[in-house]
Amino acid sequence: MELKQPYFLFLGDVQDQLAAKVAHGLVEWRRDWCVGQLRLPGCQADTGMPDLTIREAADRGARTFVVAVANAGGFIAPSWVPTILEAIEAGFDVASGLHTRLSSVPEIAARAAERGVALHDVRHAERTFGTGKGTIRSGRRLLTVGTDCSVGKKYTALALEQEMRRRGMDADFRATGQTGVLISGRGVAIDAVVADFISGAVEWLSPAADEDHWDLVEGQGSLFHPSFSGVSLGLLHGAQPDAFVVCHEPTRRTMRGVQTPVPSIADVVDMTLRLGRLVNPAIRCCGIAVNTEKLDDAAARAYLRRTAQEHALPATDPIRFGVGPIVDRLADLSI
Amino acid sequence: MELKQPYFLFLGDVQDQLAAKVAHGLVEWRRDWCVGQLRLPGCQADTGMPDLTIREAADRGARTFVVAVANAGGFIAPSWVPTILEAIEAGFDVASGLHTRLSSVPEIAARAAERGVALHDVRHAERTFGTGKGTIRSGRRLLTVGTDCSVGKKYTALALEQEMRRRGMDADFRATGQTGVLISGRGVAIDAVVADFISGAVEWLSPAADEDHWDLVEGQGSLFHPSFSGVSLGLLHGAQPDAFVVCHEPTRRTMRGVQTPVPSIADVVDMTLRLGRLVNPAIRCCGIAVNTEKLDDAAARAYLRRTAQEHALPATDPIRFGVGPIVDRLADLSI
Repeated sequence: MELKQPYFLFLGDVQDQLAAKVAHGLVEWRRDWCVGQLRLPGCQADTGMPDLTIREAADRGARTFVVAVANAGGFIAPSWVPTILEAIEAGFDVASGLHTRLSSVPEIAARAAERGVALHDVRHAERTFGTGKGTIRSGRRLLTVGTDCSVGKKYTALALEQEMRRRGMDADFRATGQTGVLISGRGVAIDAVVADFISGAVEWLSPAADEDHWDLVEGQGSLFHPSFSGVSLGLLHGAQPDAFVVCHEPTRRTMRGVQTPVPSIADVVDMTLRLGRLVNPAIRCCGIAVNTEKLDDAAARAYLRRTAQEHALPATDPIRFGVGPIVDRLADLSI
Repeated sequence: MELKQPYFLFLGDVQDQLAAKVAHGLVEWRRDWCVGQLRLPGCQADTGMPDLTIREAADRGARTFVVAVANAGGFIAPSWVPTILEAIEAGFDVASGLHTRLSSVPEIAARAAERGVALHDVRHAERTFGTGKGTIRSGRRLLTVGTDCSVGKKYTALALEQEMRRRGMDADFRATGQTGVLISGRGVAIDAVVADFISGAVEWLSPAADEDHWDLVEGQGSLFHPSFSGVSLGLLHGAQPDAFVVCHEPTRRTMRGVQTPVPSIADVVDMTLRLGRLVNPAIRCCGIAVNTEKLDDAAARAYLRRTAQEHALPATDPIRFGVGPIVDRLADLSI
């Protein structure tokens, strides 16, 4: 899936900022790709980008109209459809991270076909994949793994890309979830791939590259999450990472959506090493990324200091303190 | 997916016995469900069942016309279509384990709709699933796991069902692959499920049951196979087995389709215990099933004796020597 930039962000009429988190992610990580936002009357979210009409956005060169919101159920709200049709009429491709496919709305499918524009449902793979081969590929790879879902794996990979590029390192974020695909303009929502092809899809996503190139592969789920462990292991074996970063949220007790306790960071390091060696004997852990949002500054610093000592690894909160210490470690690896 | 019995086996015009292995599996494990076979001119396979016309099979009560063959590519050969249409006309449901869906052949889809019969593509899931929950369910479960693909996981689970039932134990084979689904008349081809729902599909397949009931869940792939490890781990976490049997082929050096070495039995026992404890702390290994086809009788016996000693577990070849020793161990567990 390859999306055309720049984007024009559609926020619909969502009732809070959280529902627009895809839009916020795009503005945070790819402000240069975003020309502005379109909000319907009553919309309670705001990315801070200029409010534009469809015509104005087209004049500023926008190519893809991004439905950059989520609602419970992931459906296309009927109130959004007239605006989506108008964008198609103006020649925009349309991209959406919702569960419901754009093409499942008959008027949208018909208008897009007439106008010859593309509809991208980034939650659904647009192509088929081969099975994974496990053959060593050139280039370097880092995978973000987690003690649970929703602990900062995407954010950490994006923050690493930003910091590594700032230092002149050759690094690309590789998206494996719908928000990541919108942010990077390409990728595969790996949890929507047919089970037999998980690792094959990741091998496609992160192909052979120059020896000093780093792919920063967005992790999903956790090897210890009973709902999604299969996705996580297929991702690990497809990514064949040289390095991984463990992402963690220290106040959580049970994993998202289940009663299973959150594993320890040490358990995740140990299991990722054991399983990852199958496809890359040189795999090593290069850092711990902690979401310390629920701790005050002193508690966050103390937690990170303790964690770094305990594991003899850089430990940081990418949002609060950046990923510098982890990149230092990767830069050492690259020599 | 629930298939109606009895079956009428269609062997098409395949050129060797191997291409009819689905038919052979059905006759081996479910002879009572099979009324006969239909072979086109030039067919080189033979299950030994009576050759019947469609009319004769209908008169003997057959309900499902099973396309019980495989070809390279898994497509529906044009030479088979007239016979499939004739079976539909006679009121048979049709089941196929091929990759190509029956309904993708327009005449087959149209005729089935007119006649009101079901088309079952057992390689494709007919329903959607929730995500796995990892909650402990009542009843006992055994999973067959492997050092590789194609080492006897289905055969071992079916042999265990047969032997346990013979001893009056309450046991059901649970199919996770297309041949298994045809043999058991129900199940899910787990490798065709969307990645997010692997463990959820297995939880659906093996629901809560009486405390002394055993589900014998057919394993897939291997935790050490870089193509299919995600399927294997999702299956392990969905099945939450109390017991597992490791299946192995001792002469193989690299895993099927890849260059990765075959892991040791000890590696598979250890990793299955480590990962399986997440959903069932009581998980234990109850035996080793070895495919000794490539060894002579003396070498097979010596290999099994050595393997049993080394792992302090029953070790047998289910085809050559039956699964009695493994069932002895399970019966002890059941007390």
